[in-house]
Amino acid sequence: MLSNERLIRVQWGDCDPAGIVFYPRYFEWVDASTILLFEKATGLTKIKMLERYGGAGLALLEARAAFKVASQYGDDIKIETRVTEFRRTVFLVQHRVTRADGTLALEAFETRLWTTRDSTTGRIRAGDMPAEIVAAFQAPGSDPANGMRPASA
Amino acid sequence: MLSNERLIRVQWGDCDPAGIVFYPRYFEWVDASTILLFEKATGLTKIKMLERYGGAGLALLEARAAFKVASQYGDDIKIETRVTEFRRTVFLVQHRVTRADGTLALEAFETRLWTTRDSTTGRIRAGDMPAEIVAAFQAPGSDPANGMRPASA
Amino acid sequence: MLSNERLIRVQWGDCDPAGIVFYPRYFEWVDASTILLFEKATGLTKIKMLERYGGAGLALLEARAAFKVASQYGDDIKIETRVTEFRRTVFLVQHRVTRADGTLALEAFETRLWTTRDSTTGRIRAGDMPAEIVAAFQAPGSDPANGMRPASA
Amino acid sequence: MLSNERLIRVQWGDCDPAGIVFYPRYFEWVDASTILLFEKATGLTKIKMLERYGGAGLALLEARAAFKVASQYGDDIKIETRVTEFRRTVFLVQHRVTRADGTLALEAFETRLWTTRDSTTGRIRAGDMPAEIVAAFQAPGSDPANGMRPASA
Repeated sequence: MLSNERLIRVQWGDCDPAGIVFYPRYFEWVDASTILLFEKATGLTKIKMLERYGGAGLALLEARAAFKVASQYGDDIKIETRVTEFRRTVFLVQHRVTRADGTLALEAFETRLWTTRDSTTGRIRAGDMPAEIVAAFQAPGSDPANGMRPASA
Repeated sequence: MLSNERLIRVQWGDCDPAGIVFYPRYFEWVDASTILLFEKATGLTKIKMLERYGGAGLALLEARAAFKVASQYGDDIKIETRVTEFRRTVFLVQHRVTRADGTLALEAFETRLWTTRDSTTGRIRAGDMPAEIVAAFQAPGSDPANGMRPASA
Repeated sequence: MLSNERLIRVQWGDCDPAGIVFYPRYFEWVDASTILLFEKATGLTKIKMLERYGGAGLALLEARAAFKVASQYGDDIKIETRVTEFRRTVFLVQHRVTRADGTLALEAFETRLWTTRDSTTGRIRAGDMPAEIVAAFQAPGSDPANGMRPASA
Repeated sequence: MLSNERLIRVQWGDCDPAGIVFYPRYFEWVDASTILLFEKATGLTKIKMLERYGGAGLALLEARAAFKVASQYGDDIKIETRVTEFRRTVFLVQHRVTRADGTLALEAFETRLWTTRDSTTGRIRAGDMPAEIVAAFQAPGSDPANGMRPASA
C-alpha cells in the first residue's frame, strides 16, 4: 500500500508558552499529509482529482491523535501517512509521527468520506470511492497482506 | 458538574477553500475552552493555577473529534465544555459544539494528565489531581448523578 | 466615520515559547476586524456584500504593524478598526489594539483594493468602490472632519 | 551578506475561501525564515543563540508586507531572506517571496531589536547586537557593497 513520508522542522511559532508544539498544529500537518498522499497516488492536486472523479471533497468524519512524546522548536519530525482501509465510501488514514531518533511522537487517525454533489439537488452526499483511485494506492511492490480490504461502508 | 459555554463567530480566515472551517481550528478553540473551564473553576489563569498547585501542565494524552455538520464563515457556534470524569491523575474533557439552531456540529474529547515536576530530577511526571481543583468543579446545584467518579488512573 | 470595536481574550495557544502573542495572530485578528467593520457598515456578510455589489474581493495590497507592548496569555485586548480613507478603488484601514489599561499594544494598517471580475475575460481587476458602501461608513453622528476624502486612487 | 532560501509548498489549509493564501500565513513563514537565517549564521538554534550571547529575544518593532500576486493551494513558493542592515541594536530583515516562475509574489520587511535582560531589574531592554553575530552574517564571498553599514540605532 502506498505511503507518503514528509519531514517537518518544528518552528518557534509552532510552539506554545510551554515550549512544545501547540497540538492543533499536528492536525494541520496531518490534514496536509493526507492530501499529499492522494496527490502522490493520483498525480493530481486535490482540486484536479475532485474535478476528474466527480468528487466534492474528502469529508472528515473523525480525527483522533494519541500523543506520546512532545516535540519542541528545532526538532525534525517525520510524518508517515497511509490509508489503512478503503471501504465503499469511507477510508481510514493513519499518520505516524516520529522524531529524528525514531521514537514515536504521536499517532493520528482520520476517518474520511468520499463525497459527491447530487446533480439534481446540488447537495453533498456520500459517494463510492472511484475504483481508479483505490487502485492507484496499490503501489508496485506493496505487500498484498497489507493491501485493501473489500469492506462495505 | 461545572461547565463552560463560549460563543465563537466563525471568521473568513478560519475557513478553507471549500468555505468551511479548517478542522484544526476546532482543536484550537477546544484547547482554549478546556483552559477557560479550569479558569472558571479555580478563578486562576492556567499559569497561576499551575504555580499554586505545583503543576507542570495539563498534558494531552489523546484528542478526538467526531464531525457532524460543517460550519462556515459567518456562523455563530457555541462550545460547551465539561470534565466528564476525574481519575487519580487523568481527566476526561468533553466539548459539544452546536450551531445557532441547536444542531450538533461536532463533539470533541480530550484525555489529559495532571503533571508535576520531580523536585530531584526536574523531569515531568504524572501527578495526583489536587483535591481542591477537583472539588472546585463541583459547582453549586450540580447534579450528583453527573458528578465525579472516584476512579483510578 | 464608522468604527468597529472588538474584544479578544489572548489564549494560551496564541502565544509562543516566549509567552507572548505570536505576531501573525494579530494579522489574523486584524483581517477579521476589517471584515467585521464592512459587515457592520453594510449589514451583509462579506460573501453577500460581494455578491450584491459585484465585488470579487477586498484584495490586500499592503499590511503593516508597529508593535509597542507585547500581549500575553490571559490579556484582554481591544481592536478598534476604522477606514481612514476611501479613494476611488483603494481604501486604507487602521487598527488600534489596546490593552485593558488603555495603553497601545500595536497599530496595524491595511491597504486594500476593491476588485471586480471582468465579465468578458473573467479576470480579477480593480473596480470603483460602490458609492453605497462608502456612504454606509458615514454613520449618523460621525464627525464630518473625520469623514471621507474624495481622493483618487 | 548571508541569505537563506526556503521552499514552501502551499497547502490546502493555508488558503481561505477565496482559494488563496490567508495572508497571516505569510507572516508565520517569514518569522520562521528570520530565525532560520540566524541559525544559518550562528550554527545555533534561536534558544541556544540567545543563551550564548545573553540575548532575551529578537523583538519585533515593525512588520510589513507588500503583496503582488496571490498564491494558491499547490503552489511552490520560495522565500529568500537577508538582513539588509545591522544598526547598533536594531536590524532590518527583507524577505522576497517568489513563485516557481520567478515572479515576485510579495515582499516582507521586519524591523527587529536585539534585547537583553537587565541583571538588576530583570526587565527586557534594548541591547547592542553582539559583534560576533553581526560578523557571522558576513559570509565568504559576500559582496562588500551589500555588506553591513556601521549605523547607529
